[in-house]
Amino acid sequence: MGDYRELWKNLNMDLEKHDQLCAVLPDMYGSVYLTQENRPEGMNYFNFVVSEVHGLRPAELNEHKQKGGKVLGTFCVFVPDEVIFAANAIPVGLCAGSQFWVEDGEKHLPRNMCPLIKAAVGAKVSGTCPYFQSVDMIVGETTCDGKKKAWEILDEYVPVHVMDLPQMKRTKDYNMWMEEIKLFIEKVEELTGNKVTVENLKKGIEIANSKRRALKRLYDFRKMTPSPISGKDALLISQIAFYDDPARFVQKVNELCDELEERAKSLKSEGKKRIMITGTPMALPNWKLHDIIENLPAEVVVEETCTGTRYFENEVSTEGETIEDLIKNLADRYLNINCACFTPNTGRIDDIKRYVEEYKVDGVIYSNLSFCHSYSIEYRNVEKALKEAGIPIMNIETDYSTEDAGQIKTRVEAFLEMI
Amino acid sequence: MGDYRELWKNLNMDLEKHDQLCAVLPDMYGSVYLTQENRPEGMNYFNFVVSEVHGLRPAELNEHKQKGGKVLGTFCVFVPDEVIFAANAIPVGLCAGSQFWVEDGEKHLPRNMCPLIKAAVGAKVSGTCPYFQSVDMIVGETTCDGKKKAWEILDEYVPVHVMDLPQMKRTKDYNMWMEEIKLFIEKVEELTGNKVTVENLKKGIEIANSKRRALKRLYDFRKMTPSPISGKDALLISQIAFYDDPARFVQKVNELCDELEERAKSLKSEGKKRIMITGTPMALPNWKLHDIIENLPAEVVVEETCTGTRYFENEVSTEGETIEDLIKNLADRYLNINCACFTPNTGRIDDIKRYVEEYKVDGVIYSNLSFCHSYSIEYRNVEKALKEAGIPIMNIETDYSTEDAGQIKTRVEAFLEMI
Ligand code: SF4
Ligand code: SF4
Ligand code: SF4
Ligand code: SF4
Repeated sequence: MGDYRELWKNLNMDLEKHDQLCAVLPDMYGSVYLTQENRPEGMNYFNFVVSEVHGLRPAELNEHKQKGGKVLGTFCVFVPDEVIFAANAIPVGLCAGSQFWVEDGEKHLPRNMCPLIKAAVGAKVSGTCPYFQSVDMIVGETTCDGKKKAWEILDEYVPVHVMDLPQMKRTKDYNMWMEEIKLFIEKVEELTGNKVTVENLKKGIEIANSKRRALKRLYDFRKMTPSPISGKDALLISQIAFYDDPARFVQKVNELCDELEERAKSLKSEGKKRIMITGTPMALPNWKLHDIIENLPAEVVVEETCTGTRYFENEVSTEGETIEDLIKNLADRYLNINCACFTPNTGRIDDIKRYVEEYKVDGVIYSNLSFCHSYSIEYRNVEKALKEAGIPIMNIETDYSTEDAGQIKTRVEAFLEMI
Repeated sequence: MGDYRELWKNLNMDLEKHDQLCAVLPDMYGSVYLTQENRPEGMNYFNFVVSEVHGLRPAELNEHKQKGGKVLGTFCVFVPDEVIFAANAIPVGLCAGSQFWVEDGEKHLPRNMCPLIKAAVGAKVSGTCPYFQSVDMIVGETTCDGKKKAWEILDEYVPVHVMDLPQMKRTKDYNMWMEEIKLFIEKVEELTGNKVTVENLKKGIEIANSKRRALKRLYDFRKMTPSPISGKDALLISQIAFYDDPARFVQKVNELCDELEERAKSLKSEGKKRIMITGTPMALPNWKLHDIIENLPAEVVVEETCTGTRYFENEVSTEGETIEDLIKNLADRYLNINCACFTPNTGRIDDIKRYVEEYKVDGVIYSNLSFCHSYSIEYRNVEKALKEAGIPIMNIETDYSTEDAGQIKTRVEAFLEMI
């Protein structure tokens, strides 16, 4: 990694603690990723991004801030990045996937809480995440009880703007969400000093759509048998999408896809079981489940998660002459996301069934971060629908610790034998 | 108890299982309530209500239904009973407080879930709650992840109408809540066939206000030292408020209050520590914490909970000429409730501090049903504010089981010695 100590110092980071974090990541990455055989060349860029994860991009954010630009942190795919791009600000997804931060989070939150929330709070309070240290404002939402209340804690460290997401999808709720986007635009304008116009909002939409298109292109390759890219590589790319410079990211994903196109012609099926993951997000560096599955004769071919299809499916239309038109387009696209935070959420079941067809899935693994009530309760209805459709499904509830890895492996093995 | 087997059979109840439930309640009630010395005479009515809890009132509901009336079940003090009364329907609070139902609930819900939700679902699926069996519709709300998703399960057993409660309290959210009340009115009109008019809605408001006034009068006696009524008796009355016939309830509470007025003149302080309970609701028959506390030299003098002050504080104004005026009055009163499901929820801290003064509280016990994230995260801010104000506070997280009773007792003892 380059020398970023000056940068980190300026970001008020706890350098000593941060060194501990930096010490574990390369080994972990090495054993999960670099042991893969016959990887696409195009993954080198993403290897590089991980090796420089706390330096390269934070330095770019710093440069942006030096020029008066703003950085906004987000925790949910419902926050419309388009608005942030429009105001010449940079969004970074702060969803935290490392056990390293859980302990510090537990000093401020109950232990029986989703690890993602504990890690996010821990990352901030420990001052060990350069992204978190770079943000001028956090954009929260009311998607689950844990996050909703964690904003009150984070707000003591960095300004938080909360968007109230409706919990249902009636006409009334669309209207409410549009109003919420309007308030968000006002807030972003206030923070950045830049007006959101029809012109720059259309540009913002284009940027977000270009990321979606690139990811969609990538995922389409996974529909092939065998997939020319491993599940964990695809997951990594999805995770990096939340941080990276959009233009560079899109270019690198497309370069990789060009390679995959060639590569697909010569690959032969090894008869691996094709697995879909559905459930809660897997934030960087949470590769646990993919790693377990792909060390068995199986490959993950699609993630119906927010670090998967929910992030890139459906583009935002740029049709329209007014801000109101564009806000409507945003609401239309975003309320198409089928998160378990809605009641009911039957659209998710339709999505899962459709992906089973499209990605030729042999079995579905429901991945649930511990103590995420919305997803854990929804399991019952998903299981019922899939069983009725004759699709095998298993449920795994886990956190960021590695203690249960052996047990999960045994259960996944049994599942693979059954399907 | 009278003979209600015919009624229970008609309600499609599981009679055998219900017998098991009926077998435990009297003993439990006896040991918690009837062992109290020098109880007010006026408690006899409430003893009677408990002894007939699965018969007397369900028979009245049945009679109402025979005449074409409807019964609506609710789970949260945000659902406006006024609308239900207006349409000549009867609301019953179904919040379930018995461990008996938890096991059945766990067949449909994750185990690591608030016992109130598990018991509620268990009560329905087991067919052992005559109230649940009597309701024509359940009115749910989006106050927490657990309940929000549980409606999808309950909806398979009984129609559920969900009200989307805003998670914040900005002008926008008031408007949204008013719209939600409007939709609720339409739903109730549809179900009952009765139009909600300015006239009957004013009457509905009056009924709800009369209950609030009676409870307020009762709670005001608890501000005295010593309180002329025990905390557990007051809790019982609050719990019964959710089920009982409003007119009779108000009359009986007022008769009791007349007695308390006399009684207060002759009572002498025994120097008991005056305790406030704040936190999650305690549904019938959850008397666990009060029982532990009042078996020590302490008395519970106020509950800042939904089976306490949040239920009765603030009346709804009957001013206004139109339905819209009254809906605004409803929204004004209801959005004054400070539940942890809002972010932020600083009003609750103000309430707690105010009650500490009004009820001359020596120490605050924060009572948190296990796995209720909203309240457990909010503890941190409440604790901070109270410590700053020099008010002793302790945190108890517990469920409906009795296993931790000994441990809780030890902790409360230590707390009492400290304050
Ligand atoms: S799972 Fe739901 S709450 Fe979490 S990031 Fe996705 S959309 Fe947002
Ligand atoms: S995984 Fe569930 S509990 Fe965790 S942040 Fe997402 S919605 Fe909330
Ligand atoms: S604690 Fe909140 S969600 Fe529960 S009954 Fe009270 S107001 Fe409703
Ligand atoms: S106590 Fe908490 S988790 Fe339980 S029903 Fe009430 S708000 Fe929901």
